[in-house]
Amino acid sequence: MKGAVLHSPRDVRFEERDAPKISAPTDAGIRISATCVCGLDLWSYRGISAVEQPMPMGHEYCGIVEDVGSAVSSIKPGQFVIGSFFASDNTCSHCQAGYQTSCQHREFVGGAQAPMLRVPLADGTLVSTPDVPPDDLIPSLLSVSDVFGTGWFAADAANVKPGMTVAVVGDGAVGLLGVLAAKQKGVERIIAMSRHEARQKLAREFGATDIVTERGDEGVARIKELTRGVGADAVLECVGTQEAMLQAIGSTRPGGYVRYVGVPHGVKLDGEPLFFAHVHLHGGPAPVRRFLPELIDLVWNKKVNPGKVFDLTLPLDKVAEGYRAMDERRAIKALLRP
Amino acid sequence: MKGAVLHSPRDVRFEERDAPKISAPTDAGIRISATCVCGLDLWSYRGISAVEQPMPMGHEYCGIVEDVGSAVSSIKPGQFVIGSFFASDNTCSHCQAGYQTSCQHREFVGGAQAPMLRVPLADGTLVSTPDVPPDDLIPSLLSVSDVFGTGWFAADAANVKPGMTVAVVGDGAVGLLGVLAAKQKGVERIIAMSRHEARQKLAREFGATDIVTERGDEGVARIKELTRGVGADAVLECVGTQEAMLQAIGSTRPGGYVRYVGVPHGVKLDGEPLFFAHVHLHGGPAPVRRFLPELIDLVWNKKVNPGKVFDLTLPLDKVAEGYRAMDERRAIKALLRP
Repeated sequence: MKGAVLHSPRDVRFEERDAPKISAPTDAGIRISATCVCGLDLWSYRGISAVEQPMPMGHEYCGIVEDVGSAVSSIKPGQFVIGSFFASDNTCSHCQAGYQTSCQHREFVGGAQAPMLRVPLADGTLVSTPDVPPDDLIPSLLSVSDVFGTGWFAADAANVKPGMTVAVVGDGAVGLLGVLAAKQKGVERIIAMSRHEARQKLAREFGATDIVTERGDEGVARIKELTRGVGADAVLECVGTQEAMLQAIGSTRPGGYVRYVGVPHGVKLDGEPLFFAHVHLHGGPAPVRRFLPELIDLVWNKKVNPGKVFDLTLPLDKVAEGYRAMDERRAIKALLRP
Repeated sequence: MKGAVLHSPRDVRFEERDAPKISAPTDAGIRISATCVCGLDLWSYRGISAVEQPMPMGHEYCGIVEDVGSAVSSIKPGQFVIGSFFASDNTCSHCQAGYQTSCQHREFVGGAQAPMLRVPLADGTLVSTPDVPPDDLIPSLLSVSDVFGTGWFAADAANVKPGMTVAVVGDGAVGLLGVLAAKQKGVERIIAMSRHEARQKLAREFGATDIVTERGDEGVARIKELTRGVGADAVLECVGTQEAMLQAIGSTRPGGYVRYVGVPHGVKLDGEPLFFAHVHLHGGPAPVRRFLPELIDLVWNKKVNPGKVFDLTLPLDKVAEGYRAMDERRAIKALLRP
């Protein structure tokens, strides 16, 4: 089969790879219905994260189960399933605590930008939809696999609720879906930080009530201004840079919540100012598995349309163009159909 | 009057100072019944925090109100009162959210190692006891002013409750009272990290069930061992050093709570490992004011005896010996009586 492989910065090739096989009795083999390019993939694409050897790309997926190992009991061939980027047994202490991305047996699921994918720990990892979905639900179901689940985690972990003011740093797909999650959880005042017109528009559509275009200290000052000098009750940091993190911490009121869900790159936090900022800080790889049933339900019943973050759809063999469009910020997120 | 003044590292003098006066209509003047030396004072005493000019010392206090400004309405001369190291109006947004140490009008209360003290924002800051207390309650009431309130904040902010395993990093007065707070909140398994016999003994008396003497990576490994590889549900970091902070983060299970209440000195947190540690991080100057009524009540009704952390009592004019004894770890905490 052919799949996406990153050879070196900006060199993504659609090339022949070994088709994945069931290698453990707990594996499932999935025929991919749709996959996509993630902001995280861009760190390697841009050469900021090292590419040491040719790397099969992609970790967001949904599709039809083709085959399962002998120990798989709840997942069956023919089901349409969604899973997260970390396979998890969903039974260990960390999973039971709702932190499936820290599962004691976790395994990264890579190489999803391909027609076929091996998913380890299938019973713990995959959640099936009520039926094989109609085509128009595919983008939103795919978003549940990572970006919607991640934005949802940020909002959920910040305990957002009606009456709170929530700010979102980052106007990528995760940030935009953080806005949607906050809205869905009843927040009336949502401030999106964005200086990109198409993204501002989608943020408003998802529920943002205010747009802040300033960044850094000016962004912080603007959030303070919009909150009578108090700061936001919760800030969702959906970027992963030092600037974004300091902006999030500075924009949060004492006792408020900073939730960060973009893998930090070069972030260093100084203990003393963090102490006096008095914020709650929590983040990490979103335990999307915890939210899959709830989010699939929301999408299945058309309560939300997170698939709108896909503003570019390409056949899988044009995957390189997907990376280029996202790198140049021509697209928010590229969906790929095998 | 004479009070304690730090001139340079290790040079604390009991010397003539101007007696404080009511200078704002919201001030109160307190005749100090007892004060003490704080771990925080030692950072300056040891020269780790700079001493730029002669500094009146002490920020923990309880005593009898002598005089109040014209705008003070709830605090009256003759009352026995306790306050925190930050004066707060107790009405602004931050105070209403329970973060009085980030009060929008906060003012540090310094110079308490003296017979008289000026307390700003008296109505918001001070809480009176039901009556003038008997002498044997003074140490515990004094502890409420800072160390017990701070240990309590750490435990409270970590949502500790029955069924959880709580570890405490630091065997100073705050760490020991973090143990007491966890016990009072119903925690059955409390691990104290200490290598000092007298402190281990007091930790056990306060409710510790396990003692870990290892530090750093070995300390983390030991906590993991004691929790079947999972980590503690909550870790209270009561020191403020890089080693203590990393020990706390490493000892906490994914999704668990790190609460840090010692002012960080030289602490730098790397974003990426913090992200993958998956812990909740929160700390800052303890909003002791929030807890004063509850803690005074516990002490007044002899439900707890936090005053046991004072293992040295000196007349105020021997304040320099109090610093020396704590610096050399001969005393956990020195109480001073004018």
